[in-house]
Amino acid sequence: MDFLKSYAVLFEEELQNINFPQKPETLYQPQRYILRNGGKRIRPVLALISCGLCGSGPKEAIPVALAVELLHNFTLMHDDIMDQADSRRGELAVHKKWDEPTAILAGDSMFVYSLLQLQNLPAQVDHKKVSKIFLNSINTVCEGQAMDMEFENRTDVTLDEYHRMIEGKTGALISSAMQMGGMCGNADQEQLGQLSLIGHSLGLAFQIQDDWLDVVADPDKFGKRKAGDIYEGKKTFLLLSALERCSEPEQKKILGLMADTPLSDSEVEEVIDILEMYNVIADTKEHYLEYYSRAEKALQQFGDSNYKQDLQHLIKYLKNRES
Amino acid sequence: MDFLKSYAVLFEEELQNINFPQKPETLYQPQRYILRNGGKRIRPVLALISCGLCGSGPKEAIPVALAVELLHNFTLMHDDIMDQADSRRGELAVHKKWDEPTAILAGDSMFVYSLLQLQNLPAQVDHKKVSKIFLNSINTVCEGQAMDMEFENRTDVTLDEYHRMIEGKTGALISSAMQMGGMCGNADQEQLGQLSLIGHSLGLAFQIQDDWLDVVADPDKFGKRKAGDIYEGKKTFLLLSALERCSEPEQKKILGLMADTPLSDSEVEEVIDILEMYNVIADTKEHYLEYYSRAEKALQQFGDSNYKQDLQHLIKYLKNRES
Repeated sequence: MDFLKSYAVLFEEELQNINFPQKPETLYQPQRYILRNGGKRIRPVLALISCGLCGSGPKEAIPVALAVELLHNFTLMHDDIMDQADSRRGELAVHKKWDEPTAILAGDSMFVYSLLQLQNLPAQVDHKKVSKIFLNSINTVCEGQAMDMEFENRTDVTLDEYHRMIEGKTGALISSAMQMGGMCGNADQEQLGQLSLIGHSLGLAFQIQDDWLDVVADPDKFGKRKAGDIYEGKKTFLLLSALERCSEPEQKKILGLMADTPLSDSEVEEVIDILEMYNVIADTKEHYLEYYSRAEKALQQFGDSNYKQDLQHLIKYLKNRES
Repeated sequence: MDFLKSYAVLFEEELQNINFPQKPETLYQPQRYILRNGGKRIRPVLALISCGLCGSGPKEAIPVALAVELLHNFTLMHDDIMDQADSRRGELAVHKKWDEPTAILAGDSMFVYSLLQLQNLPAQVDHKKVSKIFLNSINTVCEGQAMDMEFENRTDVTLDEYHRMIEGKTGALISSAMQMGGMCGNADQEQLGQLSLIGHSLGLAFQIQDDWLDVVADPDKFGKRKAGDIYEGKKTFLLLSALERCSEPEQKKILGLMADTPLSDSEVEEVIDILEMYNVIADTKEHYLEYYSRAEKALQQFGDSNYKQDLQHLIKYLKNRES
């Protein structure tokens, strides 16, 4: 994503300037560690671009960019405990490199550091209003994670609930990053609405595409085992679509297989046969492309600029990604 | 504490009005549960009194009172996981009634709900400034908890470090509750300084007194086993004082005993003998009384009012408590 390099460079420079204290070590080392481990920085870059889209220099949105990236990393720290994930971006997860109490507490402190970034908003930006948008989106992220955990013990999850779950886990923070970025660029109410729509759409598109790639992508490029989600019995968009479409005996078959994970190779084959029989794989692609289209259409409402081109470029890149 | 009843009634009424959504259940039930379980509500009451002290009706500080109580309960939820405490106020801790992932996530959401209360600050109050004071105090709470956890694996903790730890774990939030309450009453800079001082002093006094009561109080009134902290090898103010005063062989003796907990009855006797030999118990009382005096002196700076009387009454009550 070379076309995003200027944003990424700007952001990394500012991230380096966050001076976590040296002590207590167990509070701040984990925060430095997870930030050093990188990630795609997609949320801060979207905040910076959104500010540019509304007519200001992206630098105005640096406090927002820092806030959303810190917040995102705080959620990763806590999610990895909840999901018992041992590694993150090829390195040990914080709760494994240290321990769970340390990861809980370092996450809490990172949450505070995230919110403190908003103290540096440009003077003309309404701190209270930005805080409200940010906090509401964070709570929506919590709701998404709660739904996701509840789904594990349920066999009657609907596609509608699935949409709400990923709206929370992925859409809400991308959407608030873009809205808050826009506010730093003095966006008007209509622009904020468009930015919110773009963020939500991109979040949903990305997440459903992820489910799709699990079954379709070349595992060497995707970096995960082919159909790994199906082996693990995850309730992905594809699986829930199949459950809504197939016959009762097929439903029972699928739910039975998912109750005893991991699935065997032949069991995974069976599930994929059902996905294909009901055209789920092709329809899923159409579904996430529809969300990308919504984002593209909303973007059309903004005047031409380099920022608009960069975001168009990014959407195209995401749409065609194979990993 | 009947003289605080009007504040408590006002506060409980407003707390009932926080409408947590019904779903996701696993996100909001734990929050309702921990709030229903009560507690002393000391922080919100101090916020309300502080507002009154500065000349406004306590109601102005309701958003602050709610924010600090929600924040306090969020820290309890997470602390109970970190400290592996199974119960809280005579009921199962959240991570035991549900599970750890649920307690982590419900705590995170409660943190958000706490901060959202500040959206309802009186119009003339500077949201950004109040947020900054609140967030900095929350991070200081995290630092205190981190220090406390680090202390467990250290044998060279100084009294100075102990003071900083309890300033974080107890003083910071009481102090910010009082400052923010004062800001809702349009406190001037000098008043804010006094409120901060009162809050810090009360926090330190209360915590050191707690350590003292462990050894001195009538266990039937205190509700805990006599010298329970010593049995468990906790690094209390008394123990650290003794370690700073006693001879090297005695230091080795104490540290040796603390390395193998719980201590036996005769081992606890030995430790208490050393505390008495170095006058630690009497000096500790003098030390926490000194903090109460500081709070009382700072309170003298405020004009006479019912609020001042109530706070004087509260300080006197705390000073003489036996549990």
